[in-house]
Amino acid sequence: MSAQAAAGKRPAMAQDPQRPEARTPRGFVDRRARDVVAERQILTAVSGVYERWGFEPLETGAFEYADALGKFLPDADRPNEGVFALQDDDEQWMALRYDLTAPLARFAAQNWETLPKPFRRYAYGPVWRNEKPGPGRFREFVQCDADTVGSARPEADAEIIAMAVQGLEAAGLPAGSAVIKINNRKLLNGLMAAAGVTDEAQKLGVLRAVDKLDRLGADGVRLLLGEGRLDESGAFTKGAGLSAQSAERVLAFTAAGVGGRAETLAKLAEVVGGSAEGDEGLAELAAIDAALSALGVGPDRALFDPAVVRGLEYYTGAVFEAELLLSTTDEKGQKVTFGSIGGGGRYDDLVARFTGERTPATGFSFGVSRLAAALRAAGRDAARKGPWAVRGPVVVIAFDQARMADYFALAGEIRAAGVPAEVYLGSSGMKAQMKYADRRLSPAAVILGEDEIAAGTVTVKDLDLGRELASKVTDNAEWREQRPGQQTIARAELIPALRRILDAG
Amino acid sequence: MSAQAAAGKRPAMAQDPQRPEARTPRGFVDRRARDVVAERQILTAVSGVYERWGFEPLETGAFEYADALGKFLPDADRPNEGVFALQDDDEQWMALRYDLTAPLARFAAQNWETLPKPFRRYAYGPVWRNEKPGPGRFREFVQCDADTVGSARPEADAEIIAMAVQGLEAAGLPAGSAVIKINNRKLLNGLMAAAGVTDEAQKLGVLRAVDKLDRLGADGVRLLLGEGRLDESGAFTKGAGLSAQSAERVLAFTAAGVGGRAETLAKLAEVVGGSAEGDEGLAELAAIDAALSALGVGPDRALFDPAVVRGLEYYTGAVFEAELLLSTTDEKGQKVTFGSIGGGGRYDDLVARFTGERTPATGFSFGVSRLAAALRAAGRDAARKGPWAVRGPVVVIAFDQARMADYFALAGEIRAAGVPAEVYLGSSGMKAQMKYADRRLSPAAVILGEDEIAAGTVTVKDLDLGRELASKVTDNAEWREQRPGQQTIARAELIPALRRILDAG
Repeated sequence: MSAQAAAGKRPAMAQDPQRPEARTPRGFVDRRARDVVAERQILTAVSGVYERWGFEPLETGAFEYADALGKFLPDADRPNEGVFALQDDDEQWMALRYDLTAPLARFAAQNWETLPKPFRRYAYGPVWRNEKPGPGRFREFVQCDADTVGSARPEADAEIIAMAVQGLEAAGLPAGSAVIKINNRKLLNGLMAAAGVTDEAQKLGVLRAVDKLDRLGADGVRLLLGEGRLDESGAFTKGAGLSAQSAERVLAFTAAGVGGRAETLAKLAEVVGGSAEGDEGLAELAAIDAALSALGVGPDRALFDPAVVRGLEYYTGAVFEAELLLSTTDEKGQKVTFGSIGGGGRYDDLVARFTGERTPATGFSFGVSRLAAALRAAGRDAARKGPWAVRGPVVVIAFDQARMADYFALAGEIRAAGVPAEVYLGSSGMKAQMKYADRRLSPAAVILGEDEIAAGTVTVKDLDLGRELASKVTDNAEWREQRPGQQTIARAELIPALRRILDAG
Repeated sequence: MSAQAAAGKRPAMAQDPQRPEARTPRGFVDRRARDVVAERQILTAVSGVYERWGFEPLETGAFEYADALGKFLPDADRPNEGVFALQDDDEQWMALRYDLTAPLARFAAQNWETLPKPFRRYAYGPVWRNEKPGPGRFREFVQCDADTVGSARPEADAEIIAMAVQGLEAAGLPAGSAVIKINNRKLLNGLMAAAGVTDEAQKLGVLRAVDKLDRLGADGVRLLLGEGRLDESGAFTKGAGLSAQSAERVLAFTAAGVGGRAETLAKLAEVVGGSAEGDEGLAELAAIDAALSALGVGPDRALFDPAVVRGLEYYTGAVFEAELLLSTTDEKGQKVTFGSIGGGGRYDDLVARFTGERTPATGFSFGVSRLAAALRAAGRDAARKGPWAVRGPVVVIAFDQARMADYFALAGEIRAAGVPAEVYLGSSGMKAQMKYADRRLSPAAVILGEDEIAAGTVTVKDLDLGRELASKVTDNAEWREQRPGQQTIARAELIPALRRILDAG
């Protein structure tokens, strides 16, 4: 919107065309108390879990040198493909991190000699993507990651998975509302070998076809594995060109993810067993299964799903995806599922980009804002409860300018009891002050007039009760008479009275 | 450092000159557990205080449009004076925020119609400055701010000051280790009027002279107020050109900050009373004094100091500076004071930049990393205590590959009791595992061998005690005999034993 267009809304702006328009950059948002609080509660809960598992917090800077980010190398004069990049005074290109894995790989490579090994760390913070913003698509969002660097054991993957399960539950997801689906890149390679696929482009075609299983079903994927598929719009997608037999093999592979973990493993062994990589993948999944069982994580919370083909760029072994089973209904009454909330896997080559030495690593990442949004949509908004400031403070009404010191002292007393409180500091009268308290969702307003001061009392207005009663009282005269929710009590009774109101709220 | 230079340190790098060097961009740092934990504890404590005062959390994005940041306007092709700026796809210049005040002004202007007024918010997060990095000078650091927008009352300033005092104490600063020094821009203007200074350049000269009071003393400042000063190196600094009488007036003004707040006010009235702005400033400080007293903040924690000339660019009334009185000694045994940890003041014109309507506002900001560093240097490092992960987890030794499931189950038991624990997942033997636990500052290692499993016992090694005893035992044979801090106990005794070790640590 131009300054001219904005001027229509706010007459003052027309006076000075030089005045900047107050607006957030595209794809960036301001977050008020409710969102901030919901995210903080998730991060506090998840941090607590990760620390109990022996993971230490690490914070890296917002910028990395562009060459260290890996995905992205400065071959153009001003590269900005997917990241926010700029050139430093010394001509080096820096870019804002687009995830927390690349900075960890850089950190691990830089400090490998002095780190305890395996190195377990968790991290959270904003990441930035220079993409086209859209509804629900932001260019800045918060991720939370946990990774183990320096352990090649499948048990390290299992630990990450079990910890993710516990972390998501601690964040507010009830048991059974999320599931981690596990696959192994080596199985996919074994499958390719078994299906006779050696060409990289054909491999990619197979993976893309498998990735569409949710949307197209087995019949659609069968076409994409073979010659190709004509969609409803009449557009033709060229297929991967597998033989009918190979295509069935791939479909059998993707269909193996039902039943328990052992059952899936047995089915998978029939399809990909025998190839060296397939057997390796199967052995790793068997070890993951054993560790998960020892950690008390059953197939209701973590299962093997060969159809997961997540993030194939740098994963080298196990891959996992956390899927939310929570759902909500949209405005049209349609059921809406949330789908993937995060994922991860084993990436044994990322640190080697710097050091040249293979360093096994595995980790899990989830989208914090996305989880918060899902929890809210599912009616499990943590911010409604707890001591946080979504609920406003008790408001001490500024009744008489000469008595400000009394109001400050009273607000101090209330705060000293641990109850949020403030003195109204605007310049409006009684009615506007009450309206202000109401808008802030204050539990109560406190009035200290001359009468109260003389009598050693205080008047408390229970705003929750007032709101409730207001909806029942229809007659204006009756309303004035009742002064719903208002009581004058001894000063010593104030804190207990406020606590009662807060407990009831 | 070039890739070639780095190659000398790490032979592997020489193999592939294309390999990026693992390094942080200049002026950016990685923060490990101890720093992260210390900062989080400060932020949690301060947030709790600010919320009790009725301030709600707000988070804005990292980027603002360059014109909204104010300090900075894109008149060059690629402006980057002091900020990290880049041009968006639609040609608009965006810049990373350099503080939290400019984004608040933009937010308040953008949402003014719908905000409860006065609008009280606090915020914390990284800010970025594109400056030359140096020792202790970073290009990214965390600030924590609280502001009230929409109240012109001096009580709003007093509230911010009292809350800052409480916040800093909650963060770990003992009472008496910090003081807030308060001044008022209007007094400075009144002083200028009284001293006959009307020229802006001369005004700036006076303020610069006053700002050097700490360093040069009254005699030095007297020279700078007059004709000028020759320093030890022989360099001459031109003075502000005041008459001797006017210079004495300014010095009397700056010297008025001793004694209680009322005493200072009385002295200041003698110097600047009578000028319209001076009287206004005095009245505001008197109201601040009254409110601070009502809030129980004495002159030991907040005093009037006319020598404070902080941030004159946009402040319009009260200004304050928080000074740490903590000190430490450097390597040479010299006393080192920390000085300013933050500050703030009233800025009634910032929101008007957008709206054209004057909107009174006041706030306080402090440097979180700086406070954490000061607390640590003063030996008050919060991260040493508390449940955080600076202390490592209990390490379950991976003794026998066939027993991994038992180790996982045991670690799960320990975690379920709320004690951080992990199974060693590297590939090294017993000795290296113990060394690993020691490096992580683990309180204990737990050994579950065949003997223990058969007998229903577990062996616990108290690593704290082990470290202590190791420093006393001199004989190697004696050491082997004693196995310091190691005991084999019934499995049911494990959690109580670990708790005892943790409580003693």
